[in-house]
Amino acid sequence: MFNKILIANRGEIAVRVIRACREMGIETVAVYSEADKDALHTQMADEAICIGPAAAKDSYLNIQNIISATVLSGAQAIHPGFGFLSENSKFARMCKECNITFIGPDPECIENMGNKSNARDIMTKSGVPVVPGSNGAVEGEDELLRLAEEIGYPVMIKASAGGGGRGIRVVYEQSELIKAYENARAEAKAAFGDETIYMEKFIEKPRHVEIQVLGDSFGNIVYLGERDCSMQRRNQKVLEEAPSPIMTEELRKSMGETAVRAAKAVNYNNAGTIEFLLDKNGNYYFMEMNTRIQVEHPITEMVTGIDLIKEQIKIAAGEKLSFLQEDIRINGHAIECRINAEDASRGFMPCPGKVKDMYVPGGFNVRVDSAVYSGYVIPPYYDSMIAKLIVHGKDREEAIKKMRRALGEFIIDGVRTNIDFQFELINCEEFINGNYDTRFIENRFNIS
Amino acid sequence: MFNKILIANRGEIAVRVIRACREMGIETVAVYSEADKDALHTQMADEAICIGPAAAKDSYLNIQNIISATVLSGAQAIHPGFGFLSENSKFARMCKECNITFIGPDPECIENMGNKSNARDIMTKSGVPVVPGSNGAVEGEDELLRLAEEIGYPVMIKASAGGGGRGIRVVYEQSELIKAYENARAEAKAAFGDETIYMEKFIEKPRHVEIQVLGDSFGNIVYLGERDCSMQRRNQKVLEEAPSPIMTEELRKSMGETAVRAAKAVNYNNAGTIEFLLDKNGNYYFMEMNTRIQVEHPITEMVTGIDLIKEQIKIAAGEKLSFLQEDIRINGHAIECRINAEDASRGFMPCPGKVKDMYVPGGFNVRVDSAVYSGYVIPPYYDSMIAKLIVHGKDREEAIKKMRRALGEFIIDGVRTNIDFQFELINCEEFINGNYDTRFIENRFNIS
Repeated sequence: MFNKILIANRGEIAVRVIRACREMGIETVAVYSEADKDALHTQMADEAICIGPAAAKDSYLNIQNIISATVLSGAQAIHPGFGFLSENSKFARMCKECNITFIGPDPECIENMGNKSNARDIMTKSGVPVVPGSNGAVEGEDELLRLAEEIGYPVMIKASAGGGGRGIRVVYEQSELIKAYENARAEAKAAFGDETIYMEKFIEKPRHVEIQVLGDSFGNIVYLGERDCSMQRRNQKVLEEAPSPIMTEELRKSMGETAVRAAKAVNYNNAGTIEFLLDKNGNYYFMEMNTRIQVEHPITEMVTGIDLIKEQIKIAAGEKLSFLQEDIRINGHAIECRINAEDASRGFMPCPGKVKDMYVPGGFNVRVDSAVYSGYVIPPYYDSMIAKLIVHGKDREEAIKKMRRALGEFIIDGVRTNIDFQFELINCEEFINGNYDTRFIENRFNIS
Repeated sequence: MFNKILIANRGEIAVRVIRACREMGIETVAVYSEADKDALHTQMADEAICIGPAAAKDSYLNIQNIISATVLSGAQAIHPGFGFLSENSKFARMCKECNITFIGPDPECIENMGNKSNARDIMTKSGVPVVPGSNGAVEGEDELLRLAEEIGYPVMIKASAGGGGRGIRVVYEQSELIKAYENARAEAKAAFGDETIYMEKFIEKPRHVEIQVLGDSFGNIVYLGERDCSMQRRNQKVLEEAPSPIMTEELRKSMGETAVRAAKAVNYNNAGTIEFLLDKNGNYYFMEMNTRIQVEHPITEMVTGIDLIKEQIKIAAGEKLSFLQEDIRINGHAIECRINAEDASRGFMPCPGKVKDMYVPGGFNVRVDSAVYSGYVIPPYYDSMIAKLIVHGKDREEAIKKMRRALGEFIIDGVRTNIDFQFELINCEEFINGNYDTRFIENRFNIS
């Protein structure tokens, strides 16, 4: 096992990793930007090394400084957390060259899964369902009509250079197809100077359901159930739950085994997540694989009892998985609310500033993973997520009631947060009924 | 189910009960003394009623005011917590007469178990082992010699009027008996003016191991494993763990079934605890039954997943137990450290005062049940326990490491606490090996 690990991250995930290391008897090295000298992770680690100015590109993305800090501190491994360098295969490769263990999968896994069209090809070859589509640009109206017929309506026409929802059209029947195609091309050309268009099946009322996998370096891969992350605002997850309220034993087994197949296709060796779109008929399609730990990993920990960060470290240290698929049980129900320093009433604008006072909810089966403390000044340079509130109940009903109670107790004075928004969200009838899809928040709260 | 419950207590247990009620959709009424108008339980409940001046006898023990507050607020039930009126059968009976449900066992259970010699008789008749002894005063040297022979050495000679360790002698062989008897009598007469002496078997290196039971009003009684509370300072528990490090499956079954037999002997109907002394050879003896929830109940919750406060409320509302003995599983290991506002370096003297700042540990499987917050002024009138830090690990080793990590994170500025003492305690070799008895703290830290 490692004696010392450097955590190439900040915020609550850095604190999370430090805690796991401390419980494993491993020394920790924090790295911090000049803006983070008072940050919790900086204070909590055994050592802390400044790696540059506030801007992430100069500090948390500064590969050279991070590698130097690792060598200087004598750390044998780097935990990248999520975001920043966690899915940067160049960084993972450089770690390897410097004899530093990257706590994550091999660089080849990151590369294979990082390139979306490449990942799609690998999945298709491995028999993992992907969203049916044109597999590249659609050339002309004949191909357009033929493909739409093949894929089946409704279909979605998308600009290859697209983003921000522009150049996208949903088409429900053949009569609308050509016109939509022309409009999308025109919009794409105007917005991106590129009128290339591709086509995908449009998944109606999709849910974002993802499967957590763990693979060791001996080819053993297991799945740890799913997380339902359909509560999103502009593709940003807001609230997650495990299990999914619409999951069945059979579907979990099917999605879980598919996820393991996907992971095996790239010889995956660490914690990873296969994200699927699940339609209302129980069909699911591979979206992407996240080759790192995820923000929402705690809900899987709560229902399985397995500490995913410790597993990541053990796998990276060359240990075999200590459990089999049949040992994994899903117990009860867990929900996570992401607590962000933002103003929901003003377009969820980030609201950094000083936390004057704080009361953290406690009690049975309430967990807080946080990077803030009374007196802490949230810097404006990074993500606005400052805490995760996680609860565990014997069933979904108890978990919802517990989350309601815990959100009601949570006080963060001095900055605006989305605590009230989360409270409103969990009290929505649709959430209580488990009847929501990835567009729910935008539709319900009129967010365009 | 009740619509509204009054909590006749303060501190972390009042907060604990409020949280359970809130998660069950039950309104809460706090009662508070004049010293507790800013207390957390007062702030957290839906309603709060002042029941008198600071002194407990005028407020938290003021039966008339508490009953009036209940009637006035329209609460249908009272949760007594622990301490104060929780084992006062007169209070339980008065609740009944006023058509208020007392959340606890029937008054007869409290009475039967509250009188120690009566409880001992009931246990003996039910085949529950009690510490062998003289069953009352020893009259003269002949009886003394005969009884000691019958009980078996070592024996303990105790003043009936005793207290504070005075008038107690441990005798290892017959040759020492008469002299010890005379000394004990003389000491007892000088100290208490009463030379009455009784005899008990002396249990060497005893552990305090207690069994949690739950009984409903339909005669169903189950046991939820044990708690090892041998870490005591002057009979005050300091740290508790579940399971006991020296427990075996067979012994748990034997003690558990014995505890159920003890509870059945008094038709027990709510949460209760049978405290046993366990000797080094695996013999155990009934000490007493606590007819209420206990401070250390969270460790049982962590390893069984069962919310004991919610179960208490459901039982009091007339519900049947929703699980059977065979449904109860002990998962992993839990430890609780009692965090007291006291100065360990000055004889554990209570240190009330203002909490200037606070950082509460968080993360996976760390639970804090607390009554304090930043800015709170701990009043000098009540118990010095201000928080309970509870951790859960997949095994004892992980739980110890997690407790070490969590204690290291816990900051309570402004008042002295026993956090450092607890840290020292869990790092003692004897604790790590699980090799300690009820005298460990006193011996190890030279506390007379």
